[in-house]
Amino acid sequence: MNQPTVSVAPELETCHWINCEEALSIEQLRGKVIVLHAFQMLCPGCVVHGIPQASSIHALYPSEQVQVIGLHTVFEHHDVMTVAALEVFVKEYRLEFPIAVDTPSSSSAEPRTMQKYNLKGTPSLVLIDKAGHLRVNHFGRLSDMEVGNLIGQLLQEDCEAISEERPARQQTSLAASHDTSTECSDDACPTK
Amino acid sequence: MNQPTVSVAPELETCHWINCEEALSIEQLRGKVIVLHAFQMLCPGCVVHGIPQASSIHALYPSEQVQVIGLHTVFEHHDVMTVAALEVFVKEYRLEFPIAVDTPSSSSAEPRTMQKYNLKGTPSLVLIDKAGHLRVNHFGRLSDMEVGNLIGQLLQEDCEAISEERPARQQTSLAASHDTSTECSDDACPTK
Amino acid sequence: MNQPTVSVAPELETCHWINCEEALSIEQLRGKVIVLHAFQMLCPGCVVHGIPQASSIHALYPSEQVQVIGLHTVFEHHDVMTVAALEVFVKEYRLEFPIAVDTPSSSSAEPRTMQKYNLKGTPSLVLIDKAGHLRVNHFGRLSDMEVGNLIGQLLQEDCEAISEERPARQQTSLAASHDTSTECSDDACPTK
Amino acid sequence: MNQPTVSVAPELETCHWINCEEALSIEQLRGKVIVLHAFQMLCPGCVVHGIPQASSIHALYPSEQVQVIGLHTVFEHHDVMTVAALEVFVKEYRLEFPIAVDTPSSSSAEPRTMQKYNLKGTPSLVLIDKAGHLRVNHFGRLSDMEVGNLIGQLLQEDCEAISEERPARQQTSLAASHDTSTECSDDACPTK
Repeated sequence: MNQPTVSVAPELETCHWINCEEALSIEQLRGKVIVLHAFQMLCPGCVVHGIPQASSIHALYPSEQVQVIGLHTVFEHHDVMTVAALEVFVKEYRLEFPIAVDTPSSSSAEPRTMQKYNLKGTPSLVLIDKAGHLRVNHFGRLSDMEVGNLIGQLLQEDCEAISEERPARQQTSLAASHDTSTECSDDACPTK
Repeated sequence: MNQPTVSVAPELETCHWINCEEALSIEQLRGKVIVLHAFQMLCPGCVVHGIPQASSIHALYPSEQVQVIGLHTVFEHHDVMTVAALEVFVKEYRLEFPIAVDTPSSSSAEPRTMQKYNLKGTPSLVLIDKAGHLRVNHFGRLSDMEVGNLIGQLLQEDCEAISEERPARQQTSLAASHDTSTECSDDACPTK
Repeated sequence: MNQPTVSVAPELETCHWINCEEALSIEQLRGKVIVLHAFQMLCPGCVVHGIPQASSIHALYPSEQVQVIGLHTVFEHHDVMTVAALEVFVKEYRLEFPIAVDTPSSSSAEPRTMQKYNLKGTPSLVLIDKAGHLRVNHFGRLSDMEVGNLIGQLLQEDCEAISEERPARQQTSLAASHDTSTECSDDACPTK
Repeated sequence: MNQPTVSVAPELETCHWINCEEALSIEQLRGKVIVLHAFQMLCPGCVVHGIPQASSIHALYPSEQVQVIGLHTVFEHHDVMTVAALEVFVKEYRLEFPIAVDTPSSSSAEPRTMQKYNLKGTPSLVLIDKAGHLRVNHFGRLSDMEVGNLIGQLLQEDCEAISEERPARQQTSLAASHDTSTECSDDACPTK
């Protein structure tokens, strides 16, 4: 267990939103469970598994209870995974949940929110509880049953009761344990 | 909402157990979430979807927290879905969770536990909370995400807090709404 | 290559037919490609992969060109995989192609047609060309594309041209190469 | 049947090749069955079904017998489906078969080879026989079994025998019959 207590989830740093009239913030969503799905539009594991799973979460839960946010965290091939390309991708795949573009960093290939959350690659699933705490930060593929289980547990928590400190789940990276290369696998694209 | 308050889950009536040294009872399992998967070994929806899902639940959750029980509720073709045939089925499909045979009724095609739970056919998924209350009673197919979500919510409940009366989920039968025939579909076999 | 030339396919020995007014014979079907799908109703690899594939073949090809025949080759657990149980299985799974029961042997656990074809277990896929020659005899799982490819090749052959002797495909058993146990795997149940 | 006789397959017009040292031509491949898979990298039906199917064809058949060619036929969103973006796509999805970029047209949104073959959208599967005749031209999704069947039939043909004129399969567009909108569906993206 490398995180003895839960931490407040860092605020998003975004430069563009799709499927959303105005920018969403972690702060404003207090009281809801937030599902942050970090992806790249040319990451096979995202397109084949992660994004359909995010769409299923969006379809299953009422938006008053669970807010799904796609986060386009481009850390490689920046010249082709542009905002214009993402707009086409979202339209052609008919995605309906809000999707944000993570703000590029001037000093790193990894964009800013990705750095703040210390994401290991794409897809990553981040779960934030109703009190705004970072509770799950997972790189790679999770089964639908495990994702449902995690969200179900967070939904059932009492918002006030969880404002005190509590142990966080370990930052998991199952995919990395199977594949330590720096290339994309069927499941995930790691950062270098 | 046809059940204004939760009811205590009826006790199982069983005549044979597989993968289990002695008979399990709802009473003895107080403190755990119980997943009761009612099936027939010749019901296609059970074999293709329900039983693999029950195996996934058994694999995902520690047995101290969630107890999966398969319940062979034979309500048709009793002469071929015998205990001997079920033993072969469980062995060939390499099922590992405890499986009970629902006690046949002398007055009805439906066995006794099936009657007490008012199951609409197979597969049916019954969820019982830590306090022994019947909370979900679903006929037909549920997605893995929805099953994970329901179990996750029950897991997070405080055992003492839930001993008071509370509204139960409606007895759902999604499959029946699509298919009102009395024959087996890909998803389920209804009782007549 | 253990079979230097093709051989005439042995005639079926069957004791019961379902979905078929009268018994079919290899002899009578000369001019059609015959797909013989050998299965056991309690073999997981048959139920999950083989039988749905046989149904797909039956649905894809006109019956004037390709005749699918299910062959219930019970070589274990004879007491529970009875004709009565098979009748229920075929009805509940709504199978539509002709299915025959392989005649039990008085001297072996393996039934007679299974012995004549030297099948290695279930599922097995046997392909017989328009001239009545045994051309493919495969134990275990084949992809839909490979099955389509093999049938497509046999369909295109000129019935007269193939009456001369020609090399047969090797008797393949891919599943056996992965799993040499005598228990059923997800893919297949081998004979001992 | 809207094509009474087969026609010679038009030559490819391409401006870039990936996974291939030099440009391939229909002419040079005489004697092999050619599988032309027309796709766009942001077409969901291509990414989820068509391209994995093309990879399966490439894996199943020896290259001496069947030549798979991916053809990037961009007819919309030209500014984001660039050669540079395609290069990243092919690398990240680890595609191994030769892929060509269809030469853009100066007078139409549809590129030149797409026009010559009169493709209805993406994905389209084009099959060319050993004698260089266009035999199948299908828009939308085909099952693996049907694709295997079609290729198997073409493989079995005698190259000399097929040089005479023969009826071609109808230009099929199953997907279009289900979905007449001009937007991408899960299965396909039609041209307007």
